[in-house]
Amino acid sequence: MQSFNPPIRTLMGPGPSDVHPRVTAALARPTIGHLDPAFQDLMEDIKGALRRLFQTDNALTFPVSAPGSAGMETCFANLVEPGDTVIVARNGVFGSRMEENVRRAGGTAIMVDQDWGRAIDVDAVAKAFEAAGTVKALAFVHAETSTGVRSDAAALCALAREHGALSIVDCVTSLGGIPVEVDAWGADAVYSGSQKCLSAPPGLSPVTFSPRAEKAVEARTTPVNSWFLDLSLVMAYWSGDGGRSYHHTAPVNAMYGLHEALVMFEEDGMEACFKRHAHMHRALVAGLEAMGLDMLVPANERLLQLNTVQIPDGVDEAAVRAHLLSAYGLEIGAGLGPLAGKVWRIGLMGTAASQKNVLLCLTALEDALARQQVRLDRGAGVAAAEALL
Amino acid sequence: MQSFNPPIRTLMGPGPSDVHPRVTAALARPTIGHLDPAFQDLMEDIKGALRRLFQTDNALTFPVSAPGSAGMETCFANLVEPGDTVIVARNGVFGSRMEENVRRAGGTAIMVDQDWGRAIDVDAVAKAFEAAGTVKALAFVHAETSTGVRSDAAALCALAREHGALSIVDCVTSLGGIPVEVDAWGADAVYSGSQKCLSAPPGLSPVTFSPRAEKAVEARTTPVNSWFLDLSLVMAYWSGDGGRSYHHTAPVNAMYGLHEALVMFEEDGMEACFKRHAHMHRALVAGLEAMGLDMLVPANERLLQLNTVQIPDGVDEAAVRAHLLSAYGLEIGAGLGPLAGKVWRIGLMGTAASQKNVLLCLTALEDALARQQVRLDRGAGVAAAEALL
Repeated sequence: MQSFNPPIRTLMGPGPSDVHPRVTAALARPTIGHLDPAFQDLMEDIKGALRRLFQTDNALTFPVSAPGSAGMETCFANLVEPGDTVIVARNGVFGSRMEENVRRAGGTAIMVDQDWGRAIDVDAVAKAFEAAGTVKALAFVHAETSTGVRSDAAALCALAREHGALSIVDCVTSLGGIPVEVDAWGADAVYSGSQKCLSAPPGLSPVTFSPRAEKAVEARTTPVNSWFLDLSLVMAYWSGDGGRSYHHTAPVNAMYGLHEALVMFEEDGMEACFKRHAHMHRALVAGLEAMGLDMLVPANERLLQLNTVQIPDGVDEAAVRAHLLSAYGLEIGAGLGPLAGKVWRIGLMGTAASQKNVLLCLTALEDALARQQVRLDRGAGVAAAEALL
Repeated sequence: MQSFNPPIRTLMGPGPSDVHPRVTAALARPTIGHLDPAFQDLMEDIKGALRRLFQTDNALTFPVSAPGSAGMETCFANLVEPGDTVIVARNGVFGSRMEENVRRAGGTAIMVDQDWGRAIDVDAVAKAFEAAGTVKALAFVHAETSTGVRSDAAALCALAREHGALSIVDCVTSLGGIPVEVDAWGADAVYSGSQKCLSAPPGLSPVTFSPRAEKAVEARTTPVNSWFLDLSLVMAYWSGDGGRSYHHTAPVNAMYGLHEALVMFEEDGMEACFKRHAHMHRALVAGLEAMGLDMLVPANERLLQLNTVQIPDGVDEAAVRAHLLSAYGLEIGAGLGPLAGKVWRIGLMGTAASQKNVLLCLTALEDALARQQVRLDRGAGVAAAEALL
């Protein structure tokens, strides 16, 4: 057994995304105790930065000590009780995972399905509310990582409020890349991941809960299925009021990394960061279209940070990805579920949303497709470079 | 908001323990994708090393992507179904957490209580088995971090087998410090943590499941409460057979750290590592006793790596710990539950089980106690130095 020295990659898949050297360097700072006063200061700092990032005043805002899927489960396990009905609007893989979460919390999921590659149909959700009896929550994905689609979170959260239901919103891929306005939306439980537009390594899941959601947790009549994710216990660990009580041991060095990523985000500024994501997205799409490739998602429903590109007929898509990885050290994502073999997923998240990544990706794709005798219309790199100006 | 530069500490509490600079440096290596072929090699490497460390051939051996309490929950959530009875032998905080885990999985816990500070009474557990009907599992803590006690895992696992029950064993604080012999014991589900005797940062929880435990998971008639911790899904992610299926995103850089810690453990050698823990323990105890302090636990039931020292009457124990932290950068642990205010917990785990730490701790304690006018019998440092020779 020998020390592991990873290859240098450019991460333009669905996440993890490229991590800035300042963030990896932060991971390597000396470990301190998770109850150390200095660590408690760090926790407060992270909570404050996450509130600004989520655009919320929610007191209960912190990173779950596990990846995004545990953040998702934190929301469902705490808000859904046996017998509850939850409307899940599904337009990709993560809607199905939500359904599974509802079921395992003892609830019943009413599914509102939309074509993969399209935004959630707000009217269809409104009809589902009208047809259903009492609904505990509406759950949906703001930024579907499996399809590259952005849905209208403000409209959906408002609809939930109108019907007296909570909203549970997956912002794993949106947070830090496009606006996530928790308080303006009136969202109740929102989760994300460290490894997407925040460009920290995977392993942490920022979450935020509205006072309404907190009340729903407090009003539970059954214990939460999970001890590890039980908010009534985790809250006491993350609370700044009068000393913390031991619950689990936080992943100390991973928190250093998230903290540094948040510092960098604030140095750049939120607006500048959103602008950069939009700019790089336009350049990438200009290049892809110049190459003759088509996007899956209509322009007004596209995510800037996760681009689904249709694979031309006759292309061996796995061979293309293998060539990108071996010849360019470049990772892009395959399609999932019904989109497997039909799309590539190209991430432009956080640090990875850069000019050099856009140009590398286009050049590498041109090369890989040319090797499969796919005719290209014109130079993608030139088109992208024009869009970058 | 500014970059966080942690103070330099010496970590001799109940964990996290001191992390070697080679391990923190490994954390800072460039992030790669969690489905990258190179990362899959790393996963295989980690699985192999964990099997050697657990002394098992169990195929299902991997680190859960979350702290030790999630490893505990992985065992209980997967093995306990509604209606199951589990005997929990409790001699500290973590027995109570096990009880809570059984309850949340829908099971009933029969508690067999032992005084805090003493090993589990095997005869009492045998009597509980005889009094109970069908028992699904026996759960106990091999190395109680809250009391510094080692229980007889071999005898307890054998007892479970005799009664046709599975065994669930908490080895959070034992793994890497004292022998954990999963196959020789006949243990069925064992969990640990990265931040104790492995001296990696907190955030990962090595687990191993026997074929018997795997069968029990396969034979479930109800779904596991937790999607994130459902072994039937996690297995497919960690399995090397014919490609992995996406479940969650592993904490890539944290895995680098665990891997490097395992490389270092193998370079040192298991036997040498256990010897070092024993040696440092003898030196620490010699020093503490020379100082006139008493250990909580009888000598033959003591953990080498977590030493509970009784606090003399009239000592302001919080002031002692505060002085150690501020004047020496030294962290030791407070007592938990009924032992709060009665003991200190001094860890000698992994990298922290070193001559320099033993001598620093004794000197610092002597100083802190002298400031509170506690009469000391003789020089603890000299006694420890003699024991170190």
